[in-house]
Amino acid sequence: MITKKSKWESLQQKINIIIYGTNTPAGRLFDLVLLGVILLSVILVMLETVQSLDAKYHNQIIILEWVITFFFSVEYILRIVSLKKPWKYIFSFYGIIDLIAVLPMYLSLFLTGTSVLTIVRAFRLIRLFKILNHPQFTGQSIHLIDALIASRGRIFVFIYFVLISTVFIGSMMYVIEGPENGFTSIPTSIYWTIVTLTTVGYGDISPGTPLGQFLASFVMILGYGIIAVPTGIITSEIALNSKKEEQKPKQHPCSNCGVEGHQNNASYCYNCGSELNDE
Amino acid sequence: MITKKSKWESLQQKINIIIYGTNTPAGRLFDLVLLGVILLSVILVMLETVQSLDAKYHNQIIILEWVITFFFSVEYILRIVSLKKPWKYIFSFYGIIDLIAVLPMYLSLFLTGTSVLTIVRAFRLIRLFKILNHPQFTGQSIHLIDALIASRGRIFVFIYFVLISTVFIGSMMYVIEGPENGFTSIPTSIYWTIVTLTTVGYGDISPGTPLGQFLASFVMILGYGIIAVPTGIITSEIALNSKKEEQKPKQHPCSNCGVEGHQNNASYCYNCGSELNDE
Amino acid sequence: MITKKSKWESLQQKINIIIYGTNTPAGRLFDLVLLGVILLSVILVMLETVQSLDAKYHNQIIILEWVITFFFSVEYILRIVSLKKPWKYIFSFYGIIDLIAVLPMYLSLFLTGTSVLTIVRAFRLIRLFKILNHPQFTGQSIHLIDALIASRGRIFVFIYFVLISTVFIGSMMYVIEGPENGFTSIPTSIYWTIVTLTTVGYGDISPGTPLGQFLASFVMILGYGIIAVPTGIITSEIALNSKKEEQKPKQHPCSNCGVEGHQNNASYCYNCGSELNDE
Amino acid sequence: MITKKSKWESLQQKINIIIYGTNTPAGRLFDLVLLGVILLSVILVMLETVQSLDAKYHNQIIILEWVITFFFSVEYILRIVSLKKPWKYIFSFYGIIDLIAVLPMYLSLFLTGTSVLTIVRAFRLIRLFKILNHPQFTGQSIHLIDALIASRGRIFVFIYFVLISTVFIGSMMYVIEGPENGFTSIPTSIYWTIVTLTTVGYGDISPGTPLGQFLASFVMILGYGIIAVPTGIITSEIALNSKKEEQKPKQHPCSNCGVEGHQNNASYCYNCGSELNDE
Repeated sequence: MITKKSKWESLQQKINIIIYGTNTPAGRLFDLVLLGVILLSVILVMLETVQSLDAKYHNQIIILEWVITFFFSVEYILRIVSLKKPWKYIFSFYGIIDLIAVLPMYLSLFLTGTSVLTIVRAFRLIRLFKILNHPQFTGQSIHLIDALIASRGRIFVFIYFVLISTVFIGSMMYVIEGPENGFTSIPTSIYWTIVTLTTVGYGDISPGTPLGQFLASFVMILGYGIIAVPTGIITSEIALNSKKEEQKPKQHPCSNCGVEGHQNNASYCYNCGSELNDE
Repeated sequence: MITKKSKWESLQQKINIIIYGTNTPAGRLFDLVLLGVILLSVILVMLETVQSLDAKYHNQIIILEWVITFFFSVEYILRIVSLKKPWKYIFSFYGIIDLIAVLPMYLSLFLTGTSVLTIVRAFRLIRLFKILNHPQFTGQSIHLIDALIASRGRIFVFIYFVLISTVFIGSMMYVIEGPENGFTSIPTSIYWTIVTLTTVGYGDISPGTPLGQFLASFVMILGYGIIAVPTGIITSEIALNSKKEEQKPKQHPCSNCGVEGHQNNASYCYNCGSELNDE
Repeated sequence: MITKKSKWESLQQKINIIIYGTNTPAGRLFDLVLLGVILLSVILVMLETVQSLDAKYHNQIIILEWVITFFFSVEYILRIVSLKKPWKYIFSFYGIIDLIAVLPMYLSLFLTGTSVLTIVRAFRLIRLFKILNHPQFTGQSIHLIDALIASRGRIFVFIYFVLISTVFIGSMMYVIEGPENGFTSIPTSIYWTIVTLTTVGYGDISPGTPLGQFLASFVMILGYGIIAVPTGIITSEIALNSKKEEQKPKQHPCSNCGVEGHQNNASYCYNCGSELNDE
Repeated sequence: MITKKSKWESLQQKINIIIYGTNTPAGRLFDLVLLGVILLSVILVMLETVQSLDAKYHNQIIILEWVITFFFSVEYILRIVSLKKPWKYIFSFYGIIDLIAVLPMYLSLFLTGTSVLTIVRAFRLIRLFKILNHPQFTGQSIHLIDALIASRGRIFVFIYFVLISTVFIGSMMYVIEGPENGFTSIPTSIYWTIVTLTTVGYGDISPGTPLGQFLASFVMILGYGIIAVPTGIITSEIALNSKKEEQKPKQHPCSNCGVEGHQNNASYCYNCGSELNDE
């Protein structure tokens, strides 16, 4: 009774479990291998831009790059083949990223001077963000993102205030210091103000006049002080989240008797004593 | 019965709603257009100071500047006209800022060498702070400002202590390093101390003697440590505020039955079940 | 019956109230004038080190300096005269500081090449710390100092760990980078490590080899991370203090009926209703 | 009945108490002397690398180094001798470190050009970490380490996110700025990104193009903002720990009546009134 079609479907399902699953040994191995190849490909792109290494190992790098491109191509095709609604994947964010990871090498066959294409391969990096969707990290990621979202209003007000201050201080420094001390234009002065306010302080531009140094000192102390504001916002948000999480009772009802409202640190149902399976 | 005067009053009221209102579509559109024009004018002032751009597009920038000045002039007149007590606006903080936004271009007709006037136009930027008075952000702004005000005593003590330390360390570095290592005077040494203590570290001045480097290391670790103090002050204040806000019951009584003391997250009156209109 | 001695005692008491008191108008005025003169004297010492100003106004600065020294001398004598146990003051910390503030100018009459004496005058600055003993700030200062003392154990462990890491990383960078990249000795490498770990980053020394830059990147991320530790320690301490202060009942019993344990925000005695006088 | 063997055992025990004990005066003295010698040896290694000092005091440094090596050798042998199971110590972490502290000088007799061996002596520093195991600091250390371990999940997600962003921004800056502005390769660009994101800002590499400066400004504000995340994580964790510690009742039951659950700040048993011995 096993027709050709159902054989195909069974194969499709097997591939799907390996590629998209995270529970079977084969699925985990595939994830690990993929992670390794992505890291290797990103490191390759980096090393290629180092003149001394590229001059020495140019051919080896090209060959490795083609091997990786072949691996990614097969993976891309398998991903499409193993899905019942491939179009949804193809036009998804990660679908497009996966395609971008493969294209540059093929295009380099037809085009010359493809230094930009070389860099496009760095986009493969984005695939590494997928790991944060892994169940092991989702909780932690969501926790942090929640804290950021909850405080987005105050953060917006803070950044808005900082940006306007930046433009204002930059304009003043342009008038005080002028082009002869490196403040060649207001945008450059604003760049200096951001470099100073964030306490980065390259020193490529630094005030030369006493008045400029006085204003710069003021900007630094201001920057030193206002770094406390985003920290305060995020910290109090995270602390609030942590407390809520601790206080909230276990979500899942007991699988044996169905009673809900277990304490957060409970391992056994308080009603029937059967073990509670978390997550 | 509609006399000429009442016609005028009706017009005055219409303009007032458009300019000062934030609830009607026309009022919102005006706010958005104004925001855009202010941003454009600030960007223009910036670009004008970039030599290469100014050389190329000088005439276009001048024309655009006049268009913006005309727009601001009309807006300024309408603001005065639409108010019943215009003097209160004219001598208010934002009234003076609005006038300063308009004046420079007119004065530039009579004066030459008005590079300072060019910069005065950057004051238009201050008009952008008005947005923080928008109901959507008021809550967040007040929240942050409250936290700063509540901790002003400790912040004053902290800044006072930092400033005196700065002068003291600056004097010591002047004696240790001296003019031959760039510490030309005590004010310059103090400037260096602030650059170091706030972890900006330009590198325009840096200690050259072993003793100076030792003291500098001490200053850095001190600066690294005391950044924790303002952060601690602000964070604990914001955290306290957040908790209070969460605990305090809804301010407004139910508009239907007048019962007060609703929970913070309540959407319906607990007494009569009618919807609570927040804010 | 008013003998000469009691006249003297009465004068002594009057001077004492003006100099040491903070409650009478005369006492407050004296405090303000003294604050102003101290600030002026500190600014004078600073300006004297600025070559261009000293060349121009040398005589004026010297005259002003003598006026200030005379004022401080009179103040010092009055402080001793107005006390019943002058020796206790003379050998106290601030007594010695007050003497140091006066001595340099008199010594400069007998000694030449007194550049060090010039700087000693900067010690007058320390007198400004007295302000923090003012009742208005004592609460705030104690609050901050308490938080620091309470967390001294953890801060010691943290600094100890940072210092050892600093020496260790410094030694490694000395081996990796060597004298040819500016890491001339282990102490210099340790100086660089502190400059980097505290995110100051002068750029007077920066790694040149790929391995050195890799280790430097690691140090920076480490420094970025561990800045969170002192902040966390101090913040949680301040937050704890704030909470305790809020929860602790009024210290002073009611002056009318003697009942204790009033709520922190109470203005009237809960037992007899008479006003509570705080502080 | 005191045989030779038991005499040996008695001596072994005495040495053990001096070397490993912290309660007897002799044990404490030994700890202090050892601490001093370790510090001296580390300072010696440092000073040896300073050219001017090494040229002047080469012989004195060598002699002192041999004295220290002899002291460490004796200590190492005594440690082994005084234990009943010496192998456990010899192959423990600190046992290997203790051996490494001694070896280099002996090896320098047979080998020449032992600059690396010189540095290996810096490993003696690690012995200083032992102090953190001292009962006085254990509580504090554990407290901090607990906070770090409890938040390891979020910290991993954070560092992972920062590292990927770093590679991504580095690649973009390499394309925008290119080798002519110092961004010679992607690894170098990543190094610059870390220098900027952590607000270190050496200034050895800094963006030269307007677009590069704009992206750099964005990176700085990002770095300024995300420093709040690890601080928030650690702070909320430490605050949580502090609270738990405060709330948790005394661990030890009353030594008189055996009743448990005393309040944290209790000095006397609430049941029988006998003093509670803490620790």
